[in-house]
Amino acid sequence: MERINRWRAFGGWQEVWRHDSKTTGTPMEFSIFLPEGEGPKPVLWYLSGLTCNWSNVTEKGDYREACARHGIVFVAPDTSPRGEGVADDAEGAYDFGLGAGFYVDATEEPFAKHYKMRQYIEEELPALIAEHFPVDLNRQAITGHSMGGHGALTIGLRNPERFKSVSAFAPISAPTECPWGHKALGGYLGEDRAAWAEYDACKLIEGGARVAALKVDQGGADGFLEEQLKPELLRETCDTAGQVVELEIHDGYDHSYYFISSFMPAHIDWHAKYLKA
Amino acid sequence: MERINRWRAFGGWQEVWRHDSKTTGTPMEFSIFLPEGEGPKPVLWYLSGLTCNWSNVTEKGDYREACARHGIVFVAPDTSPRGEGVADDAEGAYDFGLGAGFYVDATEEPFAKHYKMRQYIEEELPALIAEHFPVDLNRQAITGHSMGGHGALTIGLRNPERFKSVSAFAPISAPTECPWGHKALGGYLGEDRAAWAEYDACKLIEGGARVAALKVDQGGADGFLEEQLKPELLRETCDTAGQVVELEIHDGYDHSYYFISSFMPAHIDWHAKYLKA
Repeated sequence: MERINRWRAFGGWQEVWRHDSKTTGTPMEFSIFLPEGEGPKPVLWYLSGLTCNWSNVTEKGDYREACARHGIVFVAPDTSPRGEGVADDAEGAYDFGLGAGFYVDATEEPFAKHYKMRQYIEEELPALIAEHFPVDLNRQAITGHSMGGHGALTIGLRNPERFKSVSAFAPISAPTECPWGHKALGGYLGEDRAAWAEYDACKLIEGGARVAALKVDQGGADGFLEEQLKPELLRETCDTAGQVVELEIHDGYDHSYYFISSFMPAHIDWHAKYLKA
Repeated sequence: MERINRWRAFGGWQEVWRHDSKTTGTPMEFSIFLPEGEGPKPVLWYLSGLTCNWSNVTEKGDYREACARHGIVFVAPDTSPRGEGVADDAEGAYDFGLGAGFYVDATEEPFAKHYKMRQYIEEELPALIAEHFPVDLNRQAITGHSMGGHGALTIGLRNPERFKSVSAFAPISAPTECPWGHKALGGYLGEDRAAWAEYDACKLIEGGARVAALKVDQGGADGFLEEQLKPELLRETCDTAGQVVELEIHDGYDHSYYFISSFMPAHIDWHAKYLKA
């Protein structure tokens, strides 16, 4: 594992690391913000959306002030394997393949070889972070945006013992019910929809999965809201199942980092309540 | 004048505008953050550094939370004229010509025609902002980074009645004493150094210019510190002349937006004291 950059920021260090992942079989990069002071510190995972890598939230996410204030480590992984030999969308589309791993373990060829983002985020990366940084894995929380919001919700719901709190910005709430999800889950997992359910937050909740604390913010002027994101399905599913969710639609906000950064401090304050409880 | 983009952010609007500048004879773009609530509101000007346009600080500057909290309008102009017919550095270097207007009114050809960034920032843009937005020009402050820190200091020192407070991040403190300044002032103003003095913060202070409140932050690990930025000259000049300056060197911080954003909230809190006094 090699540190490829670091900057002093908000009293701590914003770092970027590269390592050879056994899970994906490729080099992988992630960023990590380490607030000042002795650890072990709680960890907030941030999963990014389509086309992104660690740099988008690291440059535009406005998370460091709140993480420094609360003493929370912030980790931003990449969104897919990359590099020579990694299969991509046949037409190079933005919503499948490179930058679009959808936090699944692919079973379809040619993707099954490298596209193991679920296992990477659930197993390999936490172990690596715990080995190299002063973190307390008994105090973890997870969030993410859009495709990464889907990742945060599904990884959170499948691992409720690991996360004190789960939040998302404009998540793909029901990938089995939208075009982005149909393309990604079909492409990575095949057309047997039974295999898709564990990668759909609504299906997981319908199936009995629960998290201790759940918060979702969504922009009301988000161009993807109705066709792709479907927060109303998440709300109905939670209401029916008895999963408490703090879900708010914010008038005028779109799908960009201007939206994410506007609500990032409130999300970090909210996670801090659970991480420090 | 035409709005080319806007995003809802931190309860207000982050907007980007384009207008045909009479001063530069080119289209010019700027960004403006408008916090929610009725105006007129105070204005903080942010002048960017070499190679930048409005987008760098607008995406990476972490200023919106503090501006929203204090009700301060934040304006980020471009750093040079751009477009067809605008002269550039002969070798296309990053430190002269496009993206490097140095906040001077050029007198040397072929730059004199469009490179009028001093007059643009001092006269045309404030009038335009006052005409179109709910701002109170009796409550203005100015800041900037690197070349833009030089711009903030010199524009502030030449117009002390206009600004309640002046700050800078890693400014070029003495352009007449460093390679960036020699190249820019020589290229835009010619080799008669008498013409350079009004574009050098230290020379202006030596000549009797004063501002009511002055704050400078500088990264101690900034690669440009010794050769180009020379904060020690600013400190000595202020001490000798009796200009109070709050100047701090911060260990480990570099010249990037990771440094700027780390101290941005503190700068805005500091300006707010004077703007709201």
